[in-house]
Amino acid sequence: MATFSYTIPLPIRCSTTGNKQDPKKQNLNKIKITGTPTRSVKVDTLSQTAGVAKTSAASVENGHISKEQIRQNIPTKKQFVDYHRQGLIVEGGVGYRQTVVIRSYEVGADKTATLESILNLLQETALNHVWMSGLLSNGFGATHGMMKNNLIWVVSRMQVLVDQYPIWGEIVEIETWVGASGKNGMRRDWLIRSQATGHVFARATSTWVMMNEKTRRLSKMPEEVRAEISPWFIEKQAIQEDVPEKISKLDSNAKYVNSNLKPKRSDLDMNQHVNNVKYVRWMLETIPDQFLESHQLSGIILEYRRECGSSNIVQSLCEPDEDGILNSGLKQNNDMSPLNRFSLASEIMEGNGLLGSLDKVPLRYTHLLQTQGDTQNEEIVRGKTTWKKRQSNIELSNMPFSI
Amino acid sequence: MATFSYTIPLPIRCSTTGNKQDPKKQNLNKIKITGTPTRSVKVDTLSQTAGVAKTSAASVENGHISKEQIRQNIPTKKQFVDYHRQGLIVEGGVGYRQTVVIRSYEVGADKTATLESILNLLQETALNHVWMSGLLSNGFGATHGMMKNNLIWVVSRMQVLVDQYPIWGEIVEIETWVGASGKNGMRRDWLIRSQATGHVFARATSTWVMMNEKTRRLSKMPEEVRAEISPWFIEKQAIQEDVPEKISKLDSNAKYVNSNLKPKRSDLDMNQHVNNVKYVRWMLETIPDQFLESHQLSGIILEYRRECGSSNIVQSLCEPDEDGILNSGLKQNNDMSPLNRFSLASEIMEGNGLLGSLDKVPLRYTHLLQTQGDTQNEEIVRGKTTWKKRQSNIELSNMPFSI
Repeated sequence: MATFSYTIPLPIRCSTTGNKQDPKKQNLNKIKITGTPTRSVKVDTLSQTAGVAKTSAASVENGHISKEQIRQNIPTKKQFVDYHRQGLIVEGGVGYRQTVVIRSYEVGADKTATLESILNLLQETALNHVWMSGLLSNGFGATHGMMKNNLIWVVSRMQVLVDQYPIWGEIVEIETWVGASGKNGMRRDWLIRSQATGHVFARATSTWVMMNEKTRRLSKMPEEVRAEISPWFIEKQAIQEDVPEKISKLDSNAKYVNSNLKPKRSDLDMNQHVNNVKYVRWMLETIPDQFLESHQLSGIILEYRRECGSSNIVQSLCEPDEDGILNSGLKQNNDMSPLNRFSLASEIMEGNGLLGSLDKVPLRYTHLLQTQGDTQNEEIVRGKTTWKKRQSNIELSNMPFSI
Repeated sequence: MATFSYTIPLPIRCSTTGNKQDPKKQNLNKIKITGTPTRSVKVDTLSQTAGVAKTSAASVENGHISKEQIRQNIPTKKQFVDYHRQGLIVEGGVGYRQTVVIRSYEVGADKTATLESILNLLQETALNHVWMSGLLSNGFGATHGMMKNNLIWVVSRMQVLVDQYPIWGEIVEIETWVGASGKNGMRRDWLIRSQATGHVFARATSTWVMMNEKTRRLSKMPEEVRAEISPWFIEKQAIQEDVPEKISKLDSNAKYVNSNLKPKRSDLDMNQHVNNVKYVRWMLETIPDQFLESHQLSGIILEYRRECGSSNIVQSLCEPDEDGILNSGLKQNNDMSPLNRFSLASEIMEGNGLLGSLDKVPLRYTHLLQTQGDTQNEEIVRGKTTWKKRQSNIELSNMPFSI
């Protein structure tokens, strides 16, 4: 089990009865900080133009407000539009959608967004969802009820399916929302769409549970927390998955092993944990380059078991599922995992037909990251990746057009 | 000498006589791609609302337009506003300014933007400047004249001074522009400012020369290229530096050496070169952790000597300048490098006074990245970094305020 970077998976209940504002809070727009030379906090005119209700500073405790809070300018009330983040509250007031341009440094050698960039954008939009809720605090998204109980969110499972990778300069819309997961957990889902065509590039889902920050033990969801967050839950699922796929545990007989991996300072997040993207990089780097050059990741599942800190030495194990999709998927339709269903469906929709898709058999790998201990190893995260053959450059080459 | 990721340092001359549009090009807004099922390219209503003149597709060659070009939606004419990138043409039509929110994954364990993130944002805004010019092509920013002559831009020197690092969620404005550098080169500068206060967080400058893509030899600037780009040049400099500081070459006696560094697939850019940010990471990782924990980088100079590809094995050398600022800077005012001037000035402005700043003596390190060959090593990049002691948490802690 690991914290998923800043571990703030959910927004908090807010009144949705319009823009009524507490007049006392409104005064925050005119805050001046004692001891700061001359400037007052400039009111954001662009946001005003866009009709955004904004408060200039975050939570006020005991008459004190931190310089950091003013620089971050975290809203204290629910916002419906955020001009700077290009974000909007959607889904009847509980979902969030953000428009994002794929940046030059977010793409790899093939000019398409990397999986790492996609994971980063999922985290960013989840956090911005909470940001918009008006109750994001320095506690990184825990609700008041959670903070009272010393509870934080930790991610237990994450799944991403990529049908097509957006390219440099492409405009995408990322939508995210939360739902219930069992009695004590929460699900957060995402959809990444092409803004131009509406095509769904990627889908993702994740499940979260609460942990006591002090004891590091998992916790039930207290009733007061349920009352805060459950109004934000919606049923919609980005990935239909009746029974989550189990990932088997690898041992030292795994075909590919990278040992002595050491987290660097730059791999740590604000919680001093190795960040999620680094986990994925360690997993993927264990797969031979030759395979990576001719294949593209179409799906990944991560099952988190344990936190990984800066002092851990890590080992990455990887084993190809030689039977690929042909045995595990097509033969027994009931067993067909969502990873493969999504990938196949998109190929059929693209006009390749079932036969066309068979010669692009996706391959699957099982992964394990574990700490290397003197006496025993401990699991950090299990993974499963699904791949399809890279299409030739046809997709990116010139095509005829008519005006 | 190395290509600086996508090596597109400059915009191209465009008519600035308003929004007159070629009626033939206008039709591109209604393009349908033969063979694509139903959707036409959706017109971007948000951009229209913002009064942005936009063409939906990029350059049309021989009656063909690539699917990639439509997805990227590169403008064929100069744009003055880009809603999605939050970009504006400024400085009388030749400079570019973009508003950026510091994202959750762009900050390190201390919640401030990392140097890597800042370098990424410099690259991104430079490219978006060219994007706005209306002539960005698949050749990554080379002008028509350059493409005709098989010329590409390569960066030869880069300097960044950081006074203060923006924090997670902070809104910054990045301004960039170009100028002449000698007879055959170009300078690109940047300023990163707090949107709220106007405080300059960071300044950067870089110099670029042209290289023949085929022969990999440096080239003079052809007259037709000069005619294209020189109208974009302005005199303003982000960093005043009369004589660029020379960086001495380290040898194997350097105090800190990291060997056998291997570029990974994820470190390569679209040109299959190791990207600039990876260079900096290799340099900084050679400095002991203990120093990094108590110090913050305030300046870096990079002198590029050679391209580094995926097959190179790299060595990172590092040597502290034990004399620090006291000998090299304060004693002989004429020798005082801009790196130190900037850092000192900001400390004095912050009310620490000169004495206050002396107990925070910046330290300086000299760096070298070189390829490890069987018979000889070849320089990739020389570097110089300047550091100041991390401030205690006072800056980020609670401060009194008055309404």
